[in-house]
Amino acid sequence: MSNAKLASRSHSEHQTVVNISEQTMVGGADFLIIGGPCTIESMEQMEVVASKLITAPVQMLRGGVYKPRTSPYSFQGLGIEGLKILASVRQRYNIPVVTEVMSIPQIESVVAYADMLQIGSRNMQNFELLKAVGKIDKPVMLKRGLAATIEEFVMAAEYILSHGNPNVVLCERGIRSFDNYTRNVLDLGAVAALKQLTHLPVIVDPSHAVGKRELVAFLAKAAVACGADGLMIECHPVPEESVSDARQALSLENMVELVESLRPVAAAVGRYICQVEELAVA
Amino acid sequence: MSNAKLASRSHSEHQTVVNISEQTMVGGADFLIIGGPCTIESMEQMEVVASKLITAPVQMLRGGVYKPRTSPYSFQGLGIEGLKILASVRQRYNIPVVTEVMSIPQIESVVAYADMLQIGSRNMQNFELLKAVGKIDKPVMLKRGLAATIEEFVMAAEYILSHGNPNVVLCERGIRSFDNYTRNVLDLGAVAALKQLTHLPVIVDPSHAVGKRELVAFLAKAAVACGADGLMIECHPVPEESVSDARQALSLENMVELVESLRPVAAAVGRYICQVEELAVA
Amino acid sequence: MSNAKLASRSHSEHQTVVNISEQTMVGGADFLIIGGPCTIESMEQMEVVASKLITAPVQMLRGGVYKPRTSPYSFQGLGIEGLKILASVRQRYNIPVVTEVMSIPQIESVVAYADMLQIGSRNMQNFELLKAVGKIDKPVMLKRGLAATIEEFVMAAEYILSHGNPNVVLCERGIRSFDNYTRNVLDLGAVAALKQLTHLPVIVDPSHAVGKRELVAFLAKAAVACGADGLMIECHPVPEESVSDARQALSLENMVELVESLRPVAAAVGRYICQVEELAVA
Amino acid sequence: MSNAKLASRSHSEHQTVVNISEQTMVGGADFLIIGGPCTIESMEQMEVVASKLITAPVQMLRGGVYKPRTSPYSFQGLGIEGLKILASVRQRYNIPVVTEVMSIPQIESVVAYADMLQIGSRNMQNFELLKAVGKIDKPVMLKRGLAATIEEFVMAAEYILSHGNPNVVLCERGIRSFDNYTRNVLDLGAVAALKQLTHLPVIVDPSHAVGKRELVAFLAKAAVACGADGLMIECHPVPEESVSDARQALSLENMVELVESLRPVAAAVGRYICQVEELAVA
Repeated sequence: MSNAKLASRSHSEHQTVVNISEQTMVGGADFLIIGGPCTIESMEQMEVVASKLITAPVQMLRGGVYKPRTSPYSFQGLGIEGLKILASVRQRYNIPVVTEVMSIPQIESVVAYADMLQIGSRNMQNFELLKAVGKIDKPVMLKRGLAATIEEFVMAAEYILSHGNPNVVLCERGIRSFDNYTRNVLDLGAVAALKQLTHLPVIVDPSHAVGKRELVAFLAKAAVACGADGLMIECHPVPEESVSDARQALSLENMVELVESLRPVAAAVGRYICQVEELAVA
Repeated sequence: MSNAKLASRSHSEHQTVVNISEQTMVGGADFLIIGGPCTIESMEQMEVVASKLITAPVQMLRGGVYKPRTSPYSFQGLGIEGLKILASVRQRYNIPVVTEVMSIPQIESVVAYADMLQIGSRNMQNFELLKAVGKIDKPVMLKRGLAATIEEFVMAAEYILSHGNPNVVLCERGIRSFDNYTRNVLDLGAVAALKQLTHLPVIVDPSHAVGKRELVAFLAKAAVACGADGLMIECHPVPEESVSDARQALSLENMVELVESLRPVAAAVGRYICQVEELAVA
Repeated sequence: MSNAKLASRSHSEHQTVVNISEQTMVGGADFLIIGGPCTIESMEQMEVVASKLITAPVQMLRGGVYKPRTSPYSFQGLGIEGLKILASVRQRYNIPVVTEVMSIPQIESVVAYADMLQIGSRNMQNFELLKAVGKIDKPVMLKRGLAATIEEFVMAAEYILSHGNPNVVLCERGIRSFDNYTRNVLDLGAVAALKQLTHLPVIVDPSHAVGKRELVAFLAKAAVACGADGLMIECHPVPEESVSDARQALSLENMVELVESLRPVAAAVGRYICQVEELAVA
Repeated sequence: MSNAKLASRSHSEHQTVVNISEQTMVGGADFLIIGGPCTIESMEQMEVVASKLITAPVQMLRGGVYKPRTSPYSFQGLGIEGLKILASVRQRYNIPVVTEVMSIPQIESVVAYADMLQIGSRNMQNFELLKAVGKIDKPVMLKRGLAATIEEFVMAAEYILSHGNPNVVLCERGIRSFDNYTRNVLDLGAVAALKQLTHLPVIVDPSHAVGKRELVAFLAKAAVACGADGLMIECHPVPEESVSDARQALSLENMVELVESLRPVAAAVGRYICQVEELAVA
């Protein structure tokens, strides 16, 4: 049904589990929750974020240091300084991290500091970048383009796989529609279809999809119920003061509450969201 | 946030519960499941459908007798004969029914035979029809247009409400996108938004949204998890032989299994799906 | 390439010319220009409009009396009073008129007063209405739905044709997209495709497509160049004061200038826009 | 109306004319026509193309050597070998050339061989690539993303301008819609809007927009009429045998005929398409 060779599911049991860190994986029975701010702003910010989120527990931190901004005059991210903040928090809180790369030269330093690299929506068909992350030995989270078909999305993953990297995580993050009441439209039909077409883990970013914090929790629950393998959700110590995407970030308190509210939904579909005790022991 | 007056939620507790029959309502804690074929084909078909679905239980039957078909040469529905089949099954199995009206002259007979009238997507802005069903005393299920914004959808409901009928049920059924792998894109962000903007019950039709039977159950679970008040799902004794929308219909067995699989998801979000014993007693 | 029977072009010379009035036709070498306000507001308004537009000449007047408005609280049109204004101006200025019908009961009076009936975008798949205008003996202008495929558009025309009315004029008026800088996106590729697929005249409404008066003339020229058979353009004595769609209406002066500017473009593609002398003689 | 600083038109006469070669410019009264195959396949192919197209004359050649293909298994272009073919034809026929760059490392060689660099739709928001071509001293043609808003398109140009390169040519090439009868939907409203919002030249690629060769000429004429500054059209010695986008390529004969048919349309809107004698003299 897809022209993909390596990304296609060969039989119904064929499922890739991607190991992100010793304790963290995605694609198996354990559901993965990634949280953090759109943009890394300071060490203080990330300390507050990490110390709170591990109480949920959120199992992985996100935070942008290279930011794809519509305007060249918008803040473009802290770059290498941001990476060092991420690395510091990662070590101190023993929590894996993911951050975006926008170009080939950025790969080397991000590989050094992060556990997973993100390819953003705008670069889903930046084929030279896909080939380059196909040659590294860290997992890659590939976000769906804003108007990418399911087949194009799978074939973009195929670029990475065919260049040698088997650890690709797909991320549905909403597609463009005619209605701007929500920022984008979360395409959970694509999530269900991707789970059947491919053996790759599929996670969902409801924050960018809906763009309004008061709607995020509902779509997060829907994503769990429809069979996604994980979630990536934006949160911030003071959402209104976020330097980017302020309208969609949850407060840290709401993020912790959200994780709790997802547990019964996960259980209802045979998935498990880990407890803080388990991570503490580990 | 909406220009609606009557459809807008005035405070967080403001929620309409629509009574469909003595036992059946939508908008409260009880989750509503509607099932049945796209098109009513014969008495035999509907007997098989009803006798099987009440074992789930599906609480309400659907089935089209006036069919909006893209081509004038496609089967246009059994019309009044189909209505009589629906009425017969309704009485024999003590189960409420919903069917579509496509024009003002059809309203009278459908009101006589059905418990709820459906306005289809193609007629969401058929304003004269909306005004007309605003004057009847049966509930109306209004399906979202294929490219209708959330605001346009709410304002279409406002047409019905403002003409005197307070019993409107909104139905999200997928919107058009650039990708034809799935028939349409189910917009659960709209469902969450509608639940906040309005006090009206909101149900979801995953069958028309995704258009492939193997994906329907995943979206059905997602709809439950995100806070929808009900589901409408197409099923057929022999799906491949359905005269319309054959690709998306579940078998009756799969429909019964689906209802069972939805119970824990509903429970996870504080909703309840009734058991067959309860209906039998009633 | 289409499933249509009656609407499909059977050979390259097969082209329908629809006669609207003694002097006015569409689909042949003569290019048809229709102008007028979105909504008929008063006799005075229409007098000013008609007396000015015949100097261009605009060959046909438009003006809505039954208005499909998103909100039930918006002005719904003058109804029968508006029809009488239209009829009066039609007779006094010897100019044919087109106006919209939104329901079957409205057909009879509109047939009595207008030279062509318009089916609006929201009713493109109001199949009962299509069947009803398929039985009248006046031409019908069918506007493309906001998210209708080319095939669905052709099949909607097929409903009218197959019920006995051969005089159908297709109108492309823009489709919904993700960008709201312009109101809709004018799909001239569809116009070119429709000219090949069908033998029916195809006209273009750039006003609703683009929604900003300063862009209308550019799309009008594009429509002429790509082979459309006519244009329908909104104009108003005082555009800012229009009761509806004020942002897209041209002033009457700009409308007259536009007609003049279209002549060389029409000539460049072998079409002709009539001169005022010709109509005066007639 | 846009947040752009450098790309915004400051007053109605503000218009950039980009010099591509001694004889070739875009943005002034002279209309620019670019032609050639999607992909450079061989020296023989390009000899046939160039020798025929200069008789139109087509004033600039296109041809891909680095190809952004949906599948990693599709032909990815001849690379540097293709560049040398392009350079050879460029010199022999004294005709400027444009070709695509997909990554920063490709820029240096393309700058050495081509007169203008193309940034493709999939890279419209590859911001690191935009910054890099902002530092070269050759013109850049920036194609609109498949789901990019007008504002995002202008801001992508702003990335190039703000990094020092004032010679940016915008190219509208169709956006994604729900209808796949045509490949994409050409957005001429965006062309008209861009001409008002910015001072940059705007050209149109009808081949990728419509995706069917029998419709290309109609959209080409429409683009000229609506005020575009140029066209880029795919053609091939044997269209059916093109290694990519075969369905949309014109034959060389049809390309020459098309140029001829565009002259009167250009004249009708005050633009000029040069004659072969003029280029021969120069």
